[in-house]
Amino acid sequence: MYNADEQFEKLGLTLPPAPQALGLYKTCLIQENCLYLSGHLPIQADGKPIIGRVGSDLNKDEAKLAARQAGLTILASVKAQLGSLNKVKRVIKLFGMVNCTPDFDQHPYVINGCSELFASVWGSDNGVGTRSAVGFGSLPSNIPVEIEVLFEI
Amino acid sequence: MYNADEQFEKLGLTLPPAPQALGLYKTCLIQENCLYLSGHLPIQADGKPIIGRVGSDLNKDEAKLAARQAGLTILASVKAQLGSLNKVKRVIKLFGMVNCTPDFDQHPYVINGCSELFASVWGSDNGVGTRSAVGFGSLPSNIPVEIEVLFEI
Amino acid sequence: MYNADEQFEKLGLTLPPAPQALGLYKTCLIQENCLYLSGHLPIQADGKPIIGRVGSDLNKDEAKLAARQAGLTILASVKAQLGSLNKVKRVIKLFGMVNCTPDFDQHPYVINGCSELFASVWGSDNGVGTRSAVGFGSLPSNIPVEIEVLFEI
Repeated sequence: MYNADEQFEKLGLTLPPAPQALGLYKTCLIQENCLYLSGHLPIQADGKPIIGRVGSDLNKDEAKLAARQAGLTILASVKAQLGSLNKVKRVIKLFGMVNCTPDFDQHPYVINGCSELFASVWGSDNGVGTRSAVGFGSLPSNIPVEIEVLFEI
Repeated sequence: MYNADEQFEKLGLTLPPAPQALGLYKTCLIQENCLYLSGHLPIQADGKPIIGRVGSDLNKDEAKLAARQAGLTILASVKAQLGSLNKVKRVIKLFGMVNCTPDFDQHPYVINGCSELFASVWGSDNGVGTRSAVGFGSLPSNIPVEIEVLFEI
Repeated sequence: MYNADEQFEKLGLTLPPAPQALGLYKTCLIQENCLYLSGHLPIQADGKPIIGRVGSDLNKDEAKLAARQAGLTILASVKAQLGSLNKVKRVIKLFGMVNCTPDFDQHPYVINGCSELFASVWGSDNGVGTRSAVGFGSLPSNIPVEIEVLFEI
């Protein structure tokens, strides 16, 4: 049986602090067997988000690392909410929002930074769900990536 | 016990007319214990939407009022669909779409206009769910804000 | 009783090949009585997507055809996943993403290209759900339209 907490330990990942809401919302909410997560920023160890627009301030590889960091922030929220990563049964849906210039066209490459992290924690079947990865005109505080997820628990 | 209809009366709110679909879709749909709402525009008392782009035509406070107006339009749809605001158990998820210039970065401030309204109607726990508040390149009819919600009923 | 497979035959529709994921995600996922679909591109018969930005490269009628093509790609995924279009009970929610210039404001017109297709296959009640149709700054591979759907099965 797959053990996400053990897998997490093996990977030696460092999580940022679990994020606080930036407005009037909850970062996570459980409804029946679903865990809804608000859009998560790429929060760093010092509690501050990665900043900059993809295609001008950040290249696609820096943006992919930012997507991975948003994924780590999501893991921090899941651990704070559920106590254990093992309580997530699988990823249902991931919405990857990239703040980029109009000519940028490699959104899937960027959001793989988060998807690869989830696959390494929950496995290549349960850690991978449906997804859209698309380009926004702007994001809060000029962050490069914001990611929203729906988990089955 | 919290009474959203009574709370609504106390607040003295004026609702716009319940919106008609702008295309081939339903404004609301019930599936099991969920009420899905289509993206709602900031419709005014005369049935016309607030128009303009945030960061050029509208400032952040005008945009926040537009988000509140989109929230009032959502209340009008809920009343038309369910007959009573009391039938909403809680907000699960809100998606706040802001039509803004690429340099705009205060989307959470804007969408709080809707979230504060819902918190005042359904209370600070059930009226507040998960949320993403992000910046779009354009919105239908050049409205400043469009809001989509998932309620538990 | 409405028969979507028969209706599909009558319409004489030609489907593109069922799409492969462009990154680390599943194109479809079943959770209980819901079928989640990832964002789908307007894939053509040769397996390549329609390309171009709405408002500069494509006009609103070309964009509407692209939305219809994204809808056909969704039908291809549904058939590959479920074997029959009859297994879809209804459309719950459709998210129509348009890659367009900031001045474009006819997103509902464009996304009707997909909604009209679904209504012709599953009928004017079950084939029509809630919807948001909005404008993105950019989309993967510079496609004009990407569509995400949630079906009840």
